[in-house]
Amino acid sequence: MSDPLRLGIAGLGTVGAGVVKILRKHSKMLTARTGKSIEISAVSARSRDKDRGVNLSSYAWEDDPVALAKRDDVDVFVELMGGSDGPAKAAVEAALDAGKHVVTANKAMLALHGQMLAEKAEAQHTALRYEAAVAGGIPVIKSLTEGLAGNEITRVLGVMNGTCNYILTRMEATGRGYNALFEECAELGYLEADPNLDVGGIDAAHKLAILSSIAFGTQVDFDGIEIEGIQRVTLEDIGHASDLGYRIKLLGVAQRTGRGLEQRMMPCLVPGASALAALEGGTNMVVIEGDAVEQVVLRGPGAGEGPTASAVMGDICDIARGLVVPVFGQPATTLQAVPAARAVLPAPYYLRMGLTDKPGALAKVASVLGEAGVSIDRMRQREHDGDVATVIIVTHKTSRASLDAALTAMDGTDVVQDAPVVLRIEAL
Amino acid sequence: MSDPLRLGIAGLGTVGAGVVKILRKHSKMLTARTGKSIEISAVSARSRDKDRGVNLSSYAWEDDPVALAKRDDVDVFVELMGGSDGPAKAAVEAALDAGKHVVTANKAMLALHGQMLAEKAEAQHTALRYEAAVAGGIPVIKSLTEGLAGNEITRVLGVMNGTCNYILTRMEATGRGYNALFEECAELGYLEADPNLDVGGIDAAHKLAILSSIAFGTQVDFDGIEIEGIQRVTLEDIGHASDLGYRIKLLGVAQRTGRGLEQRMMPCLVPGASALAALEGGTNMVVIEGDAVEQVVLRGPGAGEGPTASAVMGDICDIARGLVVPVFGQPATTLQAVPAARAVLPAPYYLRMGLTDKPGALAKVASVLGEAGVSIDRMRQREHDGDVATVIIVTHKTSRASLDAALTAMDGTDVVQDAPVVLRIEAL
Repeated sequence: MSDPLRLGIAGLGTVGAGVVKILRKHSKMLTARTGKSIEISAVSARSRDKDRGVNLSSYAWEDDPVALAKRDDVDVFVELMGGSDGPAKAAVEAALDAGKHVVTANKAMLALHGQMLAEKAEAQHTALRYEAAVAGGIPVIKSLTEGLAGNEITRVLGVMNGTCNYILTRMEATGRGYNALFEECAELGYLEADPNLDVGGIDAAHKLAILSSIAFGTQVDFDGIEIEGIQRVTLEDIGHASDLGYRIKLLGVAQRTGRGLEQRMMPCLVPGASALAALEGGTNMVVIEGDAVEQVVLRGPGAGEGPTASAVMGDICDIARGLVVPVFGQPATTLQAVPAARAVLPAPYYLRMGLTDKPGALAKVASVLGEAGVSIDRMRQREHDGDVATVIIVTHKTSRASLDAALTAMDGTDVVQDAPVVLRIEAL
Repeated sequence: MSDPLRLGIAGLGTVGAGVVKILRKHSKMLTARTGKSIEISAVSARSRDKDRGVNLSSYAWEDDPVALAKRDDVDVFVELMGGSDGPAKAAVEAALDAGKHVVTANKAMLALHGQMLAEKAEAQHTALRYEAAVAGGIPVIKSLTEGLAGNEITRVLGVMNGTCNYILTRMEATGRGYNALFEECAELGYLEADPNLDVGGIDAAHKLAILSSIAFGTQVDFDGIEIEGIQRVTLEDIGHASDLGYRIKLLGVAQRTGRGLEQRMMPCLVPGASALAALEGGTNMVVIEGDAVEQVVLRGPGAGEGPTASAVMGDICDIARGLVVPVFGQPATTLQAVPAARAVLPAPYYLRMGLTDKPGALAKVASVLGEAGVSIDRMRQREHDGDVATVIIVTHKTSRASLDAALTAMDGTDVVQDAPVVLRIEAL
């Protein structure tokens, strides 16, 4: 038996406690699988006295995670505190500088500081692993970085925030509005301390930024993502989408284009028969498309004690087995800084607008679209509300620039009420 | 730049040619990702002159794969010949004995000789990798062996033969019978040289045997699998299953039981709303359930040049990166030899039988089932065919032993025509 692998775990919330439980329960199994005894040397958390349902008395305690990260009896620093900056980042940097391996579930930190941390880790030849940062229990980082390493990746997309997916699927299933379901999520404890991280699409965008970097060999570029949350998704649009054979999902999509890397995280319509459309509740799904593999779809729980701890343990086992892969799949110093491209790739769009109910209004809208080069696939006039008729339009594939030109021109007519709702339709 | 990784590729069919194409097309990308130049030293195949759509002139040629496996300028022997024994096995053994790494897509060889080959590889501290052997382009071996290494796996199941899934989904979609679709597959080149490998469930069972070993830490036990092919699946049963809210799939399932390892590969009913039911055509899907991760579902192309070559390349990249993991996830010498358990776990069953159309026949069947302890969930009497009425029964969860007792007792009555059709219903 070789030397044990000694862990320092900072952060003993749900995930941290879950990792400790697995290490205690499956000690023998883990040794059989990795050839090493995996032990906890020390732990750190905000409160020492809280009952976490697991006995911590045999581990040293550090109040300061930075001190934990530097301990001589720690080979792997496991960062489960969260927060893009502050103690989490300080401790991870200290660990890497001290030549320790790092396992983290911290998507925000990686989305904002991934390049710097990767360069630090690689300069020290240590592992920086983060399977738990993206899509919970799904081994998507491993699949993309290792299993599909022979592919030029052409597109990565997915549903990566369980809370948003829960809200959207419950809206459709129950007919309750966004606000009611937001409240329900708050009561169920499904929301981050800052709920905008969830419903504003930030959390999911952090994950997308990480996947993009691996997929396309580019530096993590969170600021380059076009982000729109689910706050403005209405039951009305969910209903119209359903009538047209679609469902609305908060979808992240990353693709290389001739003008740079296009990354989007926004509510989209997806075909009702697709696997993404069938995704219910808090489950996550990531679709990876590559030039050799065609399409691989990975589905699993996006959060929770067990699934997230499972991902952390996978990383720990890899380190125990001696695996050190470049953090984002190729050396950080070789990752390209690529400009952010916004809405370069053409797509069909869903439009909902209120039209003044007078002769020629519909013709005017059709002609404005036509003049901008946007052709109409389907158009439906729905219920009237007083003098306003709701019109739903599905366009053929069009550039966002043409569509924006049409929307501006519409604004100049006297027939369209307010700004139309515009949702992209993502092909699968 | 470190030394190149030098490959010897034996077998230049679709997959072999696909691997060569990726290596030529993505040489720079692969070096960026792995830190090594990956080169082909020599190749081997049955016919030297065949046009494979790829230029092989810069590689040495060996007629004998064993000679190829032993070449000094080969670090990794890539076996893509197929066949459980014969030249493939001889060459792989020669490569391992010579201390080379091996990458193979050969499920039959691993299902029958995996234990011996794993012991050989591990004695030499070389890698024996086989991602392409199971579920084509899906990184399922990696997910199970590495990503989910922190889990005690509780069940593995899936659809792992694309040809069978194609036949079953086309039967349902077109109303054409098994024989017609078998002929269509033969014309399309979808069948193995020995079609029974596909439609008899053997090929899929090879894959299940491999997954079971990793999942449960047991020696590969192909002979322990209960195998039934799709040849007897009828349009009639597909239709009845659909009416009841199910679809019929050739499903592989492996689970530990109190009496040993239960491995089944047979046509089953799966709930119509499940992801497995939605699987169309040649696509594969593997569901992995673990005590921490709950459930992960992986879907992708089960065969074909690109997807299979993608899996082979993932293994080659791992070796280039220095990863050596035990072949079946823990040292082969520690894998347990576990008895094969057959139909230990209770399940609901679908029964179709022809009943003599006379008073009391249905009551007699119900009473025979009741006496054996099999309770009925749903029973439907369908169309008559002369004096025979078709009856469909869905049982509640029952042991196979109780069901068999009931079937034997039914055989002793004068009301049941022929042997009833019996299909297991797998919960998801």
